[in-house]
Amino acid sequence: MVHADASNFEGVSSKEEVYEQLLLQAEGLFDGQRNWVCNLSNAASLLWHAYKSLPAPSCHVNWAGFYTLDPQTPNQLILAPFQGKPACQLIPFTRGVCGRAASTRQTQLVHDVLAFPGHIACDADSRSEIVVPILVGDNRVVGIIDVDCAVEGGFDDTDRKWLERLAGVIGGACDWP
Amino acid sequence: MVHADASNFEGVSSKEEVYEQLLLQAEGLFDGQRNWVCNLSNAASLLWHAYKSLPAPSCHVNWAGFYTLDPQTPNQLILAPFQGKPACQLIPFTRGVCGRAASTRQTQLVHDVLAFPGHIACDADSRSEIVVPILVGDNRVVGIIDVDCAVEGGFDDTDRKWLERLAGVIGGACDWP
Repeated sequence: MVHADASNFEGVSSKEEVYEQLLLQAEGLFDGQRNWVCNLSNAASLLWHAYKSLPAPSCHVNWAGFYTLDPQTPNQLILAPFQGKPACQLIPFTRGVCGRAASTRQTQLVHDVLAFPGHIACDADSRSEIVVPILVGDNRVVGIIDVDCAVEGGFDDTDRKWLERLAGVIGGACDWP
Repeated sequence: MVHADASNFEGVSSKEEVYEQLLLQAEGLFDGQRNWVCNLSNAASLLWHAYKSLPAPSCHVNWAGFYTLDPQTPNQLILAPFQGKPACQLIPFTRGVCGRAASTRQTQLVHDVLAFPGHIACDADSRSEIVVPILVGDNRVVGIIDVDCAVEGGFDDTDRKWLERLAGVIGGACDWP
């Protein structure tokens, strides 16, 4: 199979099924490859194309990707591979939905970002967001999965369940700096 | 300006003008930030949205991003941030258009990839390709810019000129491993 076909979700109908296929494809693409930049680049592409294959609200996802720990500054996230429009480079743990997920090591599912105190507007189009911490070993956070949607209520507990599984796969599949 | 607006090329008409704006936006996004993963992630987004704002053939670009040197294996490229469908993880210098650009340190402008001996088909949809080496210091290659198009003849000397300028900006703007 050529690599691009990993993002072909045609004929897969439900969100559960799309996420299940996404996880299988991610495991296939990570097989034998532990470079975190390489694997996050392909994972961002899989996420983007998975959402675009689904009905609303998922197809309105307008950003899907990753932040990792900034090697220069403790308790700060730095932009990593993503698909979507250009994004904020640095996010302190004290700021926004991403900072909250990293500092608490807990998934943040935000139905309306405008109601989230300290929300960082990298893109004025974003209306809802889910951020899942990537944890390794002894509960150490190495990064986050961040997905934004251009409509309110873009994410639910199905997204939470599968993105937490994906975070587990990614955490274990890469050598982290 | 919110970061996402950096990829707004509305009202910019010619390819020259779009590339000129892309370079200005890239320099703005790189300002004060030398992390190569962060900067390549935003640069891939700028490239993608620049092509999508242009008339055919440029709007048919189906992959835009980067490969860097594989820290594990000499004379091999490894996938870095991109926008588009999932891609080949590893490319030896001896293979394909990307390998040729890295090993020769020369831009490769390929009107028809099917006529290029040893072309690597990460995506069967790709029909033309331009690959520009990113060089630093004493002509050392640190990576490549790779852009694929779903139609033949997707790139010309205007693309070459501006992507070589972008490669110069990127090379100087980042700390490379």
